[in-house]
Amino acid sequence: MYENLKQRLFSLKNNRLFEFAVISVIIISALEIGAKTYELPGLTNQLLLGLDWFITVFFVVEITIRYIADQDKKNFFKDGWNVFDTLVVVVSLIPVNDSELALLARLVRIFRVLRMISIIPELRTLITSLLKALPQMGYVVLLMFIIFYIYAAVGSYLFAEINPFLWDNIATSMLTLFRVMTFEDWTDIQYETMEVYPWSWFYYMTFIFLTAFAFLNMVIGIVVNVMDKESRREAEELKQQLEAEQGEQVTLEDLQQEIKELKQLLQTQQPKG
Amino acid sequence: MYENLKQRLFSLKNNRLFEFAVISVIIISALEIGAKTYELPGLTNQLLLGLDWFITVFFVVEITIRYIADQDKKNFFKDGWNVFDTLVVVVSLIPVNDSELALLARLVRIFRVLRMISIIPELRTLITSLLKALPQMGYVVLLMFIIFYIYAAVGSYLFAEINPFLWDNIATSMLTLFRVMTFEDWTDIQYETMEVYPWSWFYYMTFIFLTAFAFLNMVIGIVVNVMDKESRREAEELKQQLEAEQGEQVTLEDLQQEIKELKQLLQTQQPKG
Amino acid sequence: MYENLKQRLFSLKNNRLFEFAVISVIIISALEIGAKTYELPGLTNQLLLGLDWFITVFFVVEITIRYIADQDKKNFFKDGWNVFDTLVVVVSLIPVNDSELALLARLVRIFRVLRMISIIPELRTLITSLLKALPQMGYVVLLMFIIFYIYAAVGSYLFAEINPFLWDNIATSMLTLFRVMTFEDWTDIQYETMEVYPWSWFYYMTFIFLTAFAFLNMVIGIVVNVMDKESRREAEELKQQLEAEQGEQVTLEDLQQEIKELKQLLQTQQPKG
Amino acid sequence: MYENLKQRLFSLKNNRLFEFAVISVIIISALEIGAKTYELPGLTNQLLLGLDWFITVFFVVEITIRYIADQDKKNFFKDGWNVFDTLVVVVSLIPVNDSELALLARLVRIFRVLRMISIIPELRTLITSLLKALPQMGYVVLLMFIIFYIYAAVGSYLFAEINPFLWDNIATSMLTLFRVMTFEDWTDIQYETMEVYPWSWFYYMTFIFLTAFAFLNMVIGIVVNVMDKESRREAEELKQQLEAEQGEQVTLEDLQQEIKELKQLLQTQQPKG
Repeated sequence: MYENLKQRLFSLKNNRLFEFAVISVIIISALEIGAKTYELPGLTNQLLLGLDWFITVFFVVEITIRYIADQDKKNFFKDGWNVFDTLVVVVSLIPVNDSELALLARLVRIFRVLRMISIIPELRTLITSLLKALPQMGYVVLLMFIIFYIYAAVGSYLFAEINPFLWDNIATSMLTLFRVMTFEDWTDIQYETMEVYPWSWFYYMTFIFLTAFAFLNMVIGIVVNVMDKESRREAEELKQQLEAEQGEQVTLEDLQQEIKELKQLLQTQQPKG
Repeated sequence: MYENLKQRLFSLKNNRLFEFAVISVIIISALEIGAKTYELPGLTNQLLLGLDWFITVFFVVEITIRYIADQDKKNFFKDGWNVFDTLVVVVSLIPVNDSELALLARLVRIFRVLRMISIIPELRTLITSLLKALPQMGYVVLLMFIIFYIYAAVGSYLFAEINPFLWDNIATSMLTLFRVMTFEDWTDIQYETMEVYPWSWFYYMTFIFLTAFAFLNMVIGIVVNVMDKESRREAEELKQQLEAEQGEQVTLEDLQQEIKELKQLLQTQQPKG
Repeated sequence: MYENLKQRLFSLKNNRLFEFAVISVIIISALEIGAKTYELPGLTNQLLLGLDWFITVFFVVEITIRYIADQDKKNFFKDGWNVFDTLVVVVSLIPVNDSELALLARLVRIFRVLRMISIIPELRTLITSLLKALPQMGYVVLLMFIIFYIYAAVGSYLFAEINPFLWDNIATSMLTLFRVMTFEDWTDIQYETMEVYPWSWFYYMTFIFLTAFAFLNMVIGIVVNVMDKESRREAEELKQQLEAEQGEQVTLEDLQQEIKELKQLLQTQQPKG
Repeated sequence: MYENLKQRLFSLKNNRLFEFAVISVIIISALEIGAKTYELPGLTNQLLLGLDWFITVFFVVEITIRYIADQDKKNFFKDGWNVFDTLVVVVSLIPVNDSELALLARLVRIFRVLRMISIIPELRTLITSLLKALPQMGYVVLLMFIIFYIYAAVGSYLFAEINPFLWDNIATSMLTLFRVMTFEDWTDIQYETMEVYPWSWFYYMTFIFLTAFAFLNMVIGIVVNVMDKESRREAEELKQQLEAEQGEQVTLEDLQQEIKELKQLLQTQQPKG
């Protein structure tokens, strides 16, 4: 009987209507989260609370169906997306009575919107490819961190007394340098330190050039890498296509075979002559 | 007699002088629109009103000529550009007496400048190719919207009481986040929230990295896509060229044929031997 | 005797020392221009005035030498760089007594620095390639101008009374929109108009997206175009190399010739048999 | 005995544990530099002083080991990275008693963090490739400098009296123009000069377009250059692969050989006939 249920749930899971219902509920939960940021009359608030419970229950049922219907239960939680979905649902189940934690509960519910990514295959592949691109940037990011760290230390040693709000310690300095990198009111910071150290424009100038150069290098690296993969894939395709075509065509080997037959013909002729 | 008129209008439509006249009137209407933003003496205003009527009448006549001269009337309105042109002209025909709607009437007339795009073939193809590029960005745009939505919800929940002008509800928060993405005075917003939540720099930092990363990914995706198409087109060209060249050259098949003839020669020789 | 002089000047013109002297004087004139922006003691000013006369005379002599030594005088002024050099020198010759024109005279002398570009071949080719890239951007620039014009007209009609400094007429509006495109304090402008037209964020948002999209399109277009040319050039090289290699190798035509000879051999054998 | 020591140090130098220890000490020294930017209790300060001495001694010992263990002492200082490491260590050895130089001593110690780059091979290759990319940008950088210099001279001549803080001399003007290039509050500067010279927007507009265009050109140049190298390398690989494959296959030369043998067979047959 359990097998029967499992079969039924499996067909349900792969049903287009089921998929559609799940996406609809995710969108509704997203809208509900947005609606809660507005000041609403008491009645609507009551309704939203009910809606919230419905969504929670729906997601629990949905994940349960997915788990029961899964053919290969051992590997269910090896798929990162399943773990992610389950976590989002389980966390929103934790009862929050304490008013102080109410904010946290609201925040956790926001992550339900992320299920939109796990349910749409195209977004899943997009995220996967984004994650794959990360490691190749690893060393450039490390290099940028070293540049930031050194400049932040220098900035903190030199400018801490000029403006403690910006340069008090290495952490604040790194935040300030990130601000400089985004060009956000960076000249105000520069003019301020130039009053004490007139040559400090050199500090900002080199920092901007170094980070811009490293960033540029990273972008170019990714572009070249992606296009390289693409062109290799194409070359592979072309090669296979050529080989497939050659299978049907006359090859040099065929000709060699024919010439050998000719030779034999001649050689059998000779003794007769 | 109608056929005769149609014939004449058709040759008129394809006349270079006609084309030139239409472009001239579009440029004049653009200049008129620009001139109206300056404060002008009463007389010039009178003149512009007359000019406006002339342009409206000219465009009506032009569209009528185009329609009558068209060989395939059924599909006239299937071409998006024809629909666009007709709409722009028809809308500017609506009489506006009410002074409140006068502003709207002026705004509508501005869209006449857009006819510049539909009349110059190069701009038409540019727009068509821009529109074609849109769908391939679809999922990245959806992903960015999800990122914006989640961050806006979090921002609204946490920061609404710190600065209601920026974070009151999810709509204002999304506008504020767009401001952060353009790096426009974003540190002011950050410093304000860091006074209450000292760790909120993490919120801005991750948001900036996520959106920048998604944007970068989109740009790279388009570049790779465009260049991939280009290289495929080139490979196709090269292949056809090679095939055309091969037609004139000696092929392995030709050689095989010749060797077969040799064999036959030898075999016919044998019995004689 | 004139021919003799011409010969001598020609060898002088192509002398490395002459080239070096010209570059030195250009650099000195650049330094002089920079030095004049500082407040200098009277004596140094006197010296700079003398230096200025020396540079002017030197350039006149140099251009004269170039012209006399030129083999093909008719086409001397067909080369844009020669026209450019001559213009820069001639203009700085105009005597300026009027104190009001003194500023203009100083400005004109600045353009002498531009001779640095015409004297260094690498910079000349750089500028030439930049100028060649311009036409292919022509239509995208026209499209951006149309977008700017339409948005400026709309902005001027709607917002002129809110802030005449920014939106008074179509020209000021276009300047304001350029500011919005560089993200320079654009939210201040937006918040101001949103007080009267709460939906005006849509105006800014669409403008930013349209211009960013058109700009992106332009950049991608240039990249693809440059790389396309590069790859075509490479393919051409590869083809020539392959053909050169084939010339030395055994071709199918050679084999066909040999088989034909075999056939003839057999056919001459036949009657004897 | 010295040889014996050298041998031992050589095996030590290539030991993974030694490598790990060096990286650890570099990270500790980086953390120490960061820690010093915070206000610390007296005891911790004492500890940090001790740690500082330990790090200095450790680095001296490490460099000595590297030098003694090196097989080819003459070329030890020809490797830029070795020179760099030695310099960083030697400079931090200089005793600083003077309190005025204490700041300098602290700054010098920061450069120890740069040893992170010389110890991690991936970062070394990254830096090497960055340095290799520099020369190809040389002329574009020179062109941008000429643009900056000319605009700075013009700006200084025209605007020095409007705002001496921004336009006093050519150096300040270049700093102001760099600010304009980063779009940092550039409209404030523009509005200020437009009050005296209403046409000065043209000055900023052309400057922004020229620098943006030159910058774009530089980026595209690098991308094309990198991808060109990549594609050449790939083409080379493909060629070698093809040649390797051909070695094992029947070639046209083999066929020619066989046909020649056939001919000889026929010719030897002839006299017998």
